[in-house]
Amino acid sequence: MIVVMKHNATPEEIHHVCEKIKELGLTPHVSRGVERTIIGVIGEEEKVRVKPLEAFPGVENVVPIQRPYKLASRDFKPEATEFDMKGGVTVGGKKVVVMAGPCSVENREMLMEVAQEVRSAGARFLRGGAFKPRTSPYSFQGLGEEGLKYLREAADKLGLLVVTEVMDTRTVELVSQYADMLQIGARNMQNFDLLKEVGISKKPVLLKRGLSATVQELLLSAEYLLSKGNFKVVLCERGIRTFETATRNTIDINAIPVIKQETHLPVIVDPSHGTGKWEYVAPIARAAIAAGADGLMLEVHNNPEEALSDGPQSLLPKKFRQLMEDLRPIAKAVGREL
Amino acid sequence: MIVVMKHNATPEEIHHVCEKIKELGLTPHVSRGVERTIIGVIGEEEKVRVKPLEAFPGVENVVPIQRPYKLASRDFKPEATEFDMKGGVTVGGKKVVVMAGPCSVENREMLMEVAQEVRSAGARFLRGGAFKPRTSPYSFQGLGEEGLKYLREAADKLGLLVVTEVMDTRTVELVSQYADMLQIGARNMQNFDLLKEVGISKKPVLLKRGLSATVQELLLSAEYLLSKGNFKVVLCERGIRTFETATRNTIDINAIPVIKQETHLPVIVDPSHGTGKWEYVAPIARAAIAAGADGLMLEVHNNPEEALSDGPQSLLPKKFRQLMEDLRPIAKAVGREL
Amino acid sequence: MIVVMKHNATPEEIHHVCEKIKELGLTPHVSRGVERTIIGVIGEEEKVRVKPLEAFPGVENVVPIQRPYKLASRDFKPEATEFDMKGGVTVGGKKVVVMAGPCSVENREMLMEVAQEVRSAGARFLRGGAFKPRTSPYSFQGLGEEGLKYLREAADKLGLLVVTEVMDTRTVELVSQYADMLQIGARNMQNFDLLKEVGISKKPVLLKRGLSATVQELLLSAEYLLSKGNFKVVLCERGIRTFETATRNTIDINAIPVIKQETHLPVIVDPSHGTGKWEYVAPIARAAIAAGADGLMLEVHNNPEEALSDGPQSLLPKKFRQLMEDLRPIAKAVGREL
Amino acid sequence: MIVVMKHNATPEEIHHVCEKIKELGLTPHVSRGVERTIIGVIGEEEKVRVKPLEAFPGVENVVPIQRPYKLASRDFKPEATEFDMKGGVTVGGKKVVVMAGPCSVENREMLMEVAQEVRSAGARFLRGGAFKPRTSPYSFQGLGEEGLKYLREAADKLGLLVVTEVMDTRTVELVSQYADMLQIGARNMQNFDLLKEVGISKKPVLLKRGLSATVQELLLSAEYLLSKGNFKVVLCERGIRTFETATRNTIDINAIPVIKQETHLPVIVDPSHGTGKWEYVAPIARAAIAAGADGLMLEVHNNPEEALSDGPQSLLPKKFRQLMEDLRPIAKAVGREL
Repeated sequence: MIVVMKHNATPEEIHHVCEKIKELGLTPHVSRGVERTIIGVIGEEEKVRVKPLEAFPGVENVVPIQRPYKLASRDFKPEATEFDMKGGVTVGGKKVVVMAGPCSVENREMLMEVAQEVRSAGARFLRGGAFKPRTSPYSFQGLGEEGLKYLREAADKLGLLVVTEVMDTRTVELVSQYADMLQIGARNMQNFDLLKEVGISKKPVLLKRGLSATVQELLLSAEYLLSKGNFKVVLCERGIRTFETATRNTIDINAIPVIKQETHLPVIVDPSHGTGKWEYVAPIARAAIAAGADGLMLEVHNNPEEALSDGPQSLLPKKFRQLMEDLRPIAKAVGREL
Repeated sequence: MIVVMKHNATPEEIHHVCEKIKELGLTPHVSRGVERTIIGVIGEEEKVRVKPLEAFPGVENVVPIQRPYKLASRDFKPEATEFDMKGGVTVGGKKVVVMAGPCSVENREMLMEVAQEVRSAGARFLRGGAFKPRTSPYSFQGLGEEGLKYLREAADKLGLLVVTEVMDTRTVELVSQYADMLQIGARNMQNFDLLKEVGISKKPVLLKRGLSATVQELLLSAEYLLSKGNFKVVLCERGIRTFETATRNTIDINAIPVIKQETHLPVIVDPSHGTGKWEYVAPIARAAIAAGADGLMLEVHNNPEEALSDGPQSLLPKKFRQLMEDLRPIAKAVGREL
Repeated sequence: MIVVMKHNATPEEIHHVCEKIKELGLTPHVSRGVERTIIGVIGEEEKVRVKPLEAFPGVENVVPIQRPYKLASRDFKPEATEFDMKGGVTVGGKKVVVMAGPCSVENREMLMEVAQEVRSAGARFLRGGAFKPRTSPYSFQGLGEEGLKYLREAADKLGLLVVTEVMDTRTVELVSQYADMLQIGARNMQNFDLLKEVGISKKPVLLKRGLSATVQELLLSAEYLLSKGNFKVVLCERGIRTFETATRNTIDINAIPVIKQETHLPVIVDPSHGTGKWEYVAPIARAAIAAGADGLMLEVHNNPEEALSDGPQSLLPKKFRQLMEDLRPIAKAVGREL
Repeated sequence: MIVVMKHNATPEEIHHVCEKIKELGLTPHVSRGVERTIIGVIGEEEKVRVKPLEAFPGVENVVPIQRPYKLASRDFKPEATEFDMKGGVTVGGKKVVVMAGPCSVENREMLMEVAQEVRSAGARFLRGGAFKPRTSPYSFQGLGEEGLKYLREAADKLGLLVVTEVMDTRTVELVSQYADMLQIGARNMQNFDLLKEVGISKKPVLLKRGLSATVQELLLSAEYLLSKGNFKVVLCERGIRTFETATRNTIDINAIPVIKQETHLPVIVDPSHGTGKWEYVAPIARAAIAAGADGLMLEVHNNPEEALSDGPQSLLPKKFRQLMEDLRPIAKAVGREL
């Protein structure tokens, strides 16, 4: 941590800051420059975080040097995290994982149909919302436990894994009974009580990046999970909010190499939610794999016109099948398989 | 709702869309232009929302015309909402309400001291976090119920009202026992289960705008509360996330007249969290009142250097007192009192 | 400047960086921390900027400490800049300056009418575009020199000052013949050749903040003007681009106290362009003055329905007159006059 | 164009709007809904743009339906634009074009060295700045005409094409004498006088997207060029400004499929400027090609430590060569060559 003093900071103010740093068991390291003085803080940075040094007189600003996350960082664990799911599926391994299915579970028949389609095209996870976070209270809110049952049934029948969203601390246990992986949605990325509860559950987690979350904040939310002992965490880039309105959100492909550099955790991309238009899903899916993503989450619906949510961004099964074919040579080009 | 067809949409595609619209009990109104055809939809727009018309072949995009919120809109209730709290305090009335106190409740003594200071300077609500949403799992997470007790004690002793954050559906009841107003924080603005639970509780609510939420989304979150029968809702602008880093967030003063035009609900501003620097709090507080805000939420700490959170943005009691003085003529200039 | 070395930087890499710093005549100051080493650079920071230290092996990132602008900074000139225009008008003084008029100069009669209205209501500058930067090549591009003549004529007749935009290095001389103050528009804030040319001209300048410019970048653009010897510079906040679409742009009121702290240059606000809707102009104008702005730029049109550009954001003369009245007590409350 | 009337618009206000529309030779088409009336406007939308309908009483907002650009749109020209340069290079064709070289031309020797490296690795364009847009007036501003001479010399010797930036209307002719393609930088994307001048010059143009420009605004800037008769335009995505600070800008890979759908013009990506870190250049370059980009612009420097600008984002020649190898199978996977 570096404390930058104001241009006109007095020797007393500089001394006062140094004293506080020492009080915390750390060592201040003063560099007097032509224009201003800076104080390097040697030792465990977290100790200083407790004190809001910026509130001290004469302090201009405080520049953290260490990353605020520990367990999630590459410094802590240099090798990439891989974890096994049942059915021989590995997340973060050489094989790119594909999670596919409808936005919402709407009924048993439709889910079964879509599940068969995505399974036969090569997906290993079945996605589908039973509890849906909807912007409007008047929109379809999901089937709840009924939806979870359909997901489990379809997955068991076809040898798929279930990934589905949990929105509330009170339903972590319920959703865990049916799901193989718990999804924490973008809007709940900083619902810290939910993070803690899912951390404790030890279930594999898919943590989606919030609409306006930096990569650093995403990793801090992952740290909530890891610090509760849950290391089976996969991150998901699903688009950030920018000024551009041509796509629903702006998928931040740049985040993939950044995440790969900063953390050992695997990362996948959700081009369906991010772009909001099925026409853009295939190019962004290709880009994600080319950039080094460990997997994809894709919406597939056999009748987007009748979808109760997010029809415009859903791929028809045949388009999904085509996309899977198109992704294979790209995966190979970057040393992966699909 | 207006359905804009693609340049090259076929008559069959246009017909197909019109049939769907009629099936829903609505009336399509076709306008054939030189370059493209548009279809106006007459009737209750929500019915159409169920069908994702953008997924229909030949459709370019769908433009909603009606606002997606109902109970929160000025169309529904043209006169401004005012509601009474105990102790003769009215939110949304002629008198501007000021909520002040420390970021976090740190201990009993400090809270009592700050509470006295803000009370004597004219604040009517005591703010302070007992449950704290912290970006890092290693930061101080709040005193929990102990903090709530201190808040209640200080408020009762001094004739203040307590506003404090509730972060989890499981603690709505607990927090409601101590607080006069429940705060839903920016990170939980789209925690829909929490919104529902707080809506059911019927407690007065302070709903903070999310970091990347549009005003429309803020009003949809308010709609979750209203649609559960809870009409005692006050909105809070606390800064949005932009590219500018000179301030922690960018307080969107523009949102005040927009909110005043769109909804009947009162709105206050939190310059402490929004700017992140105490030096900027006073000018933004003045701007908020001048723009028509119904109140302010302000952080006051008697020793910012020792604050466990957000020290740099806290006003010292004497600065707070000065600010209250400075705000009076501005409130008067816009027909309000303080 | 602080050079943060990577976690695993070798002693050779650290040495290599230090050698480069010394080569430039500066002093490296090494602090070895538990997790990483940081190197403080003592001396004139600009020298180091020439070398891209981030490209050196082992370097994680480089944190500048000194501000990149000099002449524009408060450190360089602590007292606020005021400058006199003819007719006894002072920019940056106790009296708030108001610049008003139509978006574009459309014809002589209309300009004369609006000029009389704004003059009688208290504006001292007549604004109006003769050269218009339009997003579309098919939009009205302004009357050019003819428009400048009308501006000069109206201003001379009524004792007003002319502020108008210059878009091209080739017309700086022409516009200077007619205008009292040259406006550099938001889209040209980083048109560096134009900045240099206007700097050389020594004409007073109104420099608008770019749509996605940070305050620091705005001050660097001002530095281009100052470094050519032109110190008569007034900055203008006119809205930044964010995700919010309820207003055309998001006027960043927070920028006012930031600018006041960082620079000695005066700053005004343009609520008409920033909000894009006349209904929001008055509250934002009030907020700007309350926050400490030195003036306002406002669009006034006597027949917005017929305006060739930006009708929806123009105030009718009677609304402008009312606003001027409403601003007086607010100006007074912050120690200013209007 | 659709005019949405306010909830409480009177019949007179509706009539007034319709009359104006007819006056312009267009046909209003009124749809009376339950909650509000909408008026479809049939005919050439540009005519209406002249009138700011939003300024009419009773009008809530105006929704444009037609795209504001014509010549740049796919509706106008459905097939993709390809154009030939000398030396058998085609832009927009099956073969992906690579433009590579240093950020700035620093001296003759260095340029010659880098040019040889990029030529032998497969680049067909030599990039390099002679006139540099620098945020600070104290940064290296480029060698000017001397730099242009070196570029021409290197390109002629090695059979490369020169692409270099022109910043000022006054130097379009000069730069055109040396360059094969004129680059308009991100900061000048809305320097409309420059666009007009470059349009008239008929030189092939590389038009970079502005930092906060929507795709629609980029296409409107292209329309300035096309409307002057210059159809040899290639667009360049180089990162937009968002809240994320882990990368210098956020390369918007989503813009590639959007641009491909909206316009016939080719599009390339500049990962060096967009990410600001050489470590991220390769993954983003791969993503760009996978998403369908027609080419890449890349910074290569044989000694990034000594670069006068943008060293940290420059690839060493051997990294560039490796990247070219890695891109080949990806280009092939999407039906292209490199």
